[in-house]
Amino acid sequence: MRFDILTVLPGLLESPFAHSILHRAQKKGLTEIHVHNLRDYSTHKHKSVDDYPYGGGSGMVMMIEPFANCIEKLKSEREYDEVIFMTPDGVTLNQGLANQLSSVKNIMILCGHYKGIDQRIRDLYVTREMSVGDYVLSGGELPAAILVDAVVRLIPGVLSDETSALSDSFQGELLDAPVYTRPADWNGHKVPEILLSGNTPLIEKWRFEQSVERTRIRRPDLLDE
Amino acid sequence: MRFDILTVLPGLLESPFAHSILHRAQKKGLTEIHVHNLRDYSTHKHKSVDDYPYGGGSGMVMMIEPFANCIEKLKSEREYDEVIFMTPDGVTLNQGLANQLSSVKNIMILCGHYKGIDQRIRDLYVTREMSVGDYVLSGGELPAAILVDAVVRLIPGVLSDETSALSDSFQGELLDAPVYTRPADWNGHKVPEILLSGNTPLIEKWRFEQSVERTRIRRPDLLDE
Repeated sequence: MRFDILTVLPGLLESPFAHSILHRAQKKGLTEIHVHNLRDYSTHKHKSVDDYPYGGGSGMVMMIEPFANCIEKLKSEREYDEVIFMTPDGVTLNQGLANQLSSVKNIMILCGHYKGIDQRIRDLYVTREMSVGDYVLSGGELPAAILVDAVVRLIPGVLSDETSALSDSFQGELLDAPVYTRPADWNGHKVPEILLSGNTPLIEKWRFEQSVERTRIRRPDLLDE
Repeated sequence: MRFDILTVLPGLLESPFAHSILHRAQKKGLTEIHVHNLRDYSTHKHKSVDDYPYGGGSGMVMMIEPFANCIEKLKSEREYDEVIFMTPDGVTLNQGLANQLSSVKNIMILCGHYKGIDQRIRDLYVTREMSVGDYVLSGGELPAAILVDAVVRLIPGVLSDETSALSDSFQGELLDAPVYTRPADWNGHKVPEILLSGNTPLIEKWRFEQSVERTRIRRPDLLDE
């Protein structure tokens, strides 16, 4: 699975893709992540990528040309299943969408900045507009990293223990039960005795009850669905 | 405003905090972001930070000690308004929460990994559990970066043009209207004529109508509130 990310801040994405699961998935050949600097596709002197909005108002708008030039070049090299624009007014990412995207081959992700991107890019090229949540950020780079992380960890072979991904919160309908590890007694704060009992059926029952209870208290909306 | 982020992957957060608005806000002295490596607080040989879960099951659990040691040290140096654990079963971040957090002084952010963190850390130290959305990620680092970004850009003086933050999607109840910049005609795809008219009242009216229409189609839930 291949990701192409179009951004004015390629450096911002360096470290998130060079560590942990995303790093290992690339080394294993299970995913390729290519970050493209939109300034390299500017036809303006000074490599500018933004300009004032038509009609006035505050903030700068990202120009159509650098995006269009980069998108056209990439599309001439391979077919893309999705061209996704990360934007707070897009469809909110959830685990179902991440699952869906984990089975496609080539995804392009456009990162906006400043006040937004020229609407014509959205109209002409974008197949999906996605948000990571109802909050405003400096740009689309962190949302792009979030999307890549959420999707890549679902590709078979990326996680060493496949059951880990399947038993996470949101893969079922319930939140996870509390987890504990050594020491069993830390300054008088003890691990629940049931977890030390070795009685697997009882432990499973306890975990299920804790999951239901945590979900009921924290996210009753998940139980209603 | 000061952030202390506790993680096993400090390197993952290097580039997001070294670019763009977060970089400028630190250079201007408007925020300090300190990333702490939990391995430095491990008392185990090999600096291990995780162990098998009590009661069995897949995945590793982050141990209480490295967190506790680092948290206690930081707390001995200053008071913290919030100790936030980033977790998919926390309260979902939204713009109202970001606004609220932008007025406090010291925030500690705990990043989980693997299957989760020992529940006793959550019980003993955490003041808020927050999620960035209903999807599973490799760890709490990207969510921590998202939270810092959403909050820092609201600190007065961080954005060069304060009205930019105030007119963003989610700061009002409406999504943004479409934006356009030069050229007015790109391969036959034109900017709406109204935006070239110079008639500011009419442009404002058009933008308001576009905002309402976009919100009605994409996020009718925002209009119901």
